[in-house]
Amino acid sequence: MADGLNLAIAGATGAVGAELIKLLETGDLPVNSLKLLASAKSAGKELKFRGEPLIVEELKGDSFSGVDLAFFSAGAGTSREFAPTAVKQGAIVVDNSSAFRMDPDVPLVIPEINPDDARAHRGTIAVPNCTTIVALMALYPLHKAFHVNRVIAASYQAVSGAGAKAIAELTSQTEARLAGQPVKQSVFPHPIAFNVLPQVDIFLESGYTKEEEKFRNESRKIMHHPTFRASITCVRVPVYRSHSVALTAEFAEPVSVDHARDVLAKAPGIELVDDPGKSEYPMPITSSGKKECAVGRLRIDWALENGLAFWSCGDQLLKGAALNALQIAELVLR
Amino acid sequence: MADGLNLAIAGATGAVGAELIKLLETGDLPVNSLKLLASAKSAGKELKFRGEPLIVEELKGDSFSGVDLAFFSAGAGTSREFAPTAVKQGAIVVDNSSAFRMDPDVPLVIPEINPDDARAHRGTIAVPNCTTIVALMALYPLHKAFHVNRVIAASYQAVSGAGAKAIAELTSQTEARLAGQPVKQSVFPHPIAFNVLPQVDIFLESGYTKEEEKFRNESRKIMHHPTFRASITCVRVPVYRSHSVALTAEFAEPVSVDHARDVLAKAPGIELVDDPGKSEYPMPITSSGKKECAVGRLRIDWALENGLAFWSCGDQLLKGAALNALQIAELVLR
Repeated sequence: MADGLNLAIAGATGAVGAELIKLLETGDLPVNSLKLLASAKSAGKELKFRGEPLIVEELKGDSFSGVDLAFFSAGAGTSREFAPTAVKQGAIVVDNSSAFRMDPDVPLVIPEINPDDARAHRGTIAVPNCTTIVALMALYPLHKAFHVNRVIAASYQAVSGAGAKAIAELTSQTEARLAGQPVKQSVFPHPIAFNVLPQVDIFLESGYTKEEEKFRNESRKIMHHPTFRASITCVRVPVYRSHSVALTAEFAEPVSVDHARDVLAKAPGIELVDDPGKSEYPMPITSSGKKECAVGRLRIDWALENGLAFWSCGDQLLKGAALNALQIAELVLR
Repeated sequence: MADGLNLAIAGATGAVGAELIKLLETGDLPVNSLKLLASAKSAGKELKFRGEPLIVEELKGDSFSGVDLAFFSAGAGTSREFAPTAVKQGAIVVDNSSAFRMDPDVPLVIPEINPDDARAHRGTIAVPNCTTIVALMALYPLHKAFHVNRVIAASYQAVSGAGAKAIAELTSQTEARLAGQPVKQSVFPHPIAFNVLPQVDIFLESGYTKEEEKFRNESRKIMHHPTFRASITCVRVPVYRSHSVALTAEFAEPVSVDHARDVLAKAPGIELVDDPGKSEYPMPITSSGKKECAVGRLRIDWALENGLAFWSCGDQLLKGAALNALQIAELVLR
């Protein structure tokens, strides 16, 4: 690796892939070569890296020969099929999909929270779900200070979490509604323009969606907190980019707003935006394109003992996916 | 009243006023005369009632002579100034504003919940905040069955709750964003198009907004439950009509999803929409224009003891305001 790293991106033509390419252009990693991989459908497409054209190659079993590290962001099916092969060929895999997140042999890592887990990897490291990341970036520093017992949350999730087609669907539906035309949907089960959908991902036997279950299970694994109790309602909103989460947390220790603000102001990767008198709080439009997650609306919760209510926003394509993956790569390659 | 009722609407040109006029056209109340009142600015404007033109008059101190019942929906300031005069002139006042809601001499009424309070009125009866109504319509039947101790909630509130100007602002901002033009705001403190704002109404010393405090205080009064603990995060979303609320409730008694569904299926004014397997749940676009509040996404809450999570949607201009006011009028005039 003296001459730099040989990297690959599986899912290079997707929304997260595009962000990864941009982050690698300006990041600290010394890139010797970058292999852009995608399905046969996208192979041959030309993308740019540092101003130079790069041709997208078809993702195949032998794509990872000579690759030091491969980012996967092409869905759980692709990760399950190709990540083990990539590891066998000597690559470290940083996987954005849900394929291996709950696998006990695969670390699930937010570098600001559990970097040591990443260092103990056996080839594959998983990136948590975007909503989990945006929520835990705010919750974990508070957990370290006050010890969290339980959280009740509700999310406001942007359409770009569902990919490029979902972005186009929000635009075309919005245009249709404004023009008084009928609205067509294909990505979401119902119209998303001027509507909210209390469903992200599929429903489970429990009545929760997969997205909602992920929040609880992934949080327990990342925080090493197996008794953590959490319930969330995950809701898709007509926003292009950045997820928001309203959280109410019950702590073992007494909590004050001043102390909590102090903790968050010092937390890595967090921007404290909390001046209600000036109507300053995190919002999707101000979080989009930023690397930090923003936290605000801190107040003593009226319903729980030692409770704190707060509001977290983050760009789910950056810290919620591509940036978190890159940070993991930097951590294990350093 | 043998020849029918003489009614008045103060705030006739607003969003709630318009809904009231429509409801009175098809409702059960025998209307002899309808006086449409508004500020000097709107006086002279022509509106229709049952196909007949009616001229809006300026709201003045002597507007209520001969009026049996007056609906107020012109803001708290107008209610404070004119409602006492209206009562002195012999009118019953049904007030949609926040002016008298917490006044111990004024009943605060959702007819499906506390009709007896309305019957004990001394001239003025208050309509609760729209978010409180949408949440309690679902919560109260469950409270009667299982006894609620505490609720943690998050709202997804439509712009029409902030009036006709807010509706126009969402449209103009959406058009500007789609055209790549700069976005202007005047009603909301930040752009609402393709964004969410964790602020409805002004902030209080506690860090909660007035809207959030209303939910707790009004719920206690309506349910006659002074020890009820509640915290909510109220959020404005780019939706034209109908509020949604994600609720998590802790009950004194054990609760099951089947039992809760059974309770809600029999509750007045409620439509149970809860078939996750078919992606059927309440949404703003399906609740708009409907008299019922819709409830769904019932599941055992993972964070609280005897906890149930659910999702309620309702048209905040109908059941959240005009319809609830009309139901109160029917109750006290019957």
